[in-house]
Amino acid sequence: MDLKGMIRHVRDFPRPGIDFLDITPVLLDGEAFRYVTDSFVKELRGVEFDIVASLEARGFILGASVAYALNKGFVPIRKKNKLPWKTVSVSYELEYGSDVFEMHADSVKPGQKIVIIDDLLATGGTLEASVKLIETLGGEVVGSVFFIELEDLRGREKFSGANFDIFSLIKS
Amino acid sequence: MDLKGMIRHVRDFPRPGIDFLDITPVLLDGEAFRYVTDSFVKELRGVEFDIVASLEARGFILGASVAYALNKGFVPIRKKNKLPWKTVSVSYELEYGSDVFEMHADSVKPGQKIVIIDDLLATGGTLEASVKLIETLGGEVVGSVFFIELEDLRGREKFSGANFDIFSLIKS
Repeated sequence: MDLKGMIRHVRDFPRPGIDFLDITPVLLDGEAFRYVTDSFVKELRGVEFDIVASLEARGFILGASVAYALNKGFVPIRKKNKLPWKTVSVSYELEYGSDVFEMHADSVKPGQKIVIIDDLLATGGTLEASVKLIETLGGEVVGSVFFIELEDLRGREKFSGANFDIFSLIKS
Repeated sequence: MDLKGMIRHVRDFPRPGIDFLDITPVLLDGEAFRYVTDSFVKELRGVEFDIVASLEARGFILGASVAYALNKGFVPIRKKNKLPWKTVSVSYELEYGSDVFEMHADSVKPGQKIVIIDDLLATGGTLEASVKLIETLGGEVVGSVFFIELEDLRGREKFSGANFDIFSLIKS
């Protein structure tokens, strides 16, 4: 399946100079959406884990379908002040300034094994923030799966010493 | 399964006076998450449709798992300026002021049949906005499924003349 050909390039979004990779045409196609989810599931075969954690908001779409397919629980990682209950939080660097991610304080129990699923691996900043949050709660990241990896940004290198694998379905 | 007992009530979120219904404990439990998705799927048995449309951001979690389970495409309905490509938009009333929802202009083709999935039916304002967007694109809403319905807010009454059913798993 030509997933790469289905991804829409949108220039200058959200800022001038950015070539945004729009995955909505893939999601819109039932067969393609299923293929992506099933590819993630296949990659996670043999990985023992308890929960899927995904990042707001596109990550929710891919993470939820994988959690359902594998009979796992789902934990949302959200932007500041979106989660209603007690949270742990971590700030992460953006190109300009910084932002904050949060997880509910009871969303991961000590010793639980977590797989992180998101649409995009770019600089690795959001993955790094997610790992920090999960480890703060005593959880262990045992895998991470992305739809698209922007290889030029070398996000993967940040995790060369990590105890989990990074899988991406498409390199761009 | 005691789904109702798993929902966490958070007082005064996001504003004083609001009793927020937090579904994250349900999502976190793999068995409960599967039960919710499978209940939605069961309810949609016999409904002929092409695409699941869901609202940012909690709606994505439930909508994506249903779309996957039923081999359908998935369309995100998002807040203003979140979608990268050409959009149609509609504004809807909030308790104080208004907000805007958008869909990609190519996300629904004329004549396509759409099911709307979201976590909460309250006043029906966001469902009304979603129906408008889909109809603007020439699509037809043929069903809507919610996890929780706040019956006191009587959102359902807005759609008494509509050509689609509203199903909610839990009344609160």
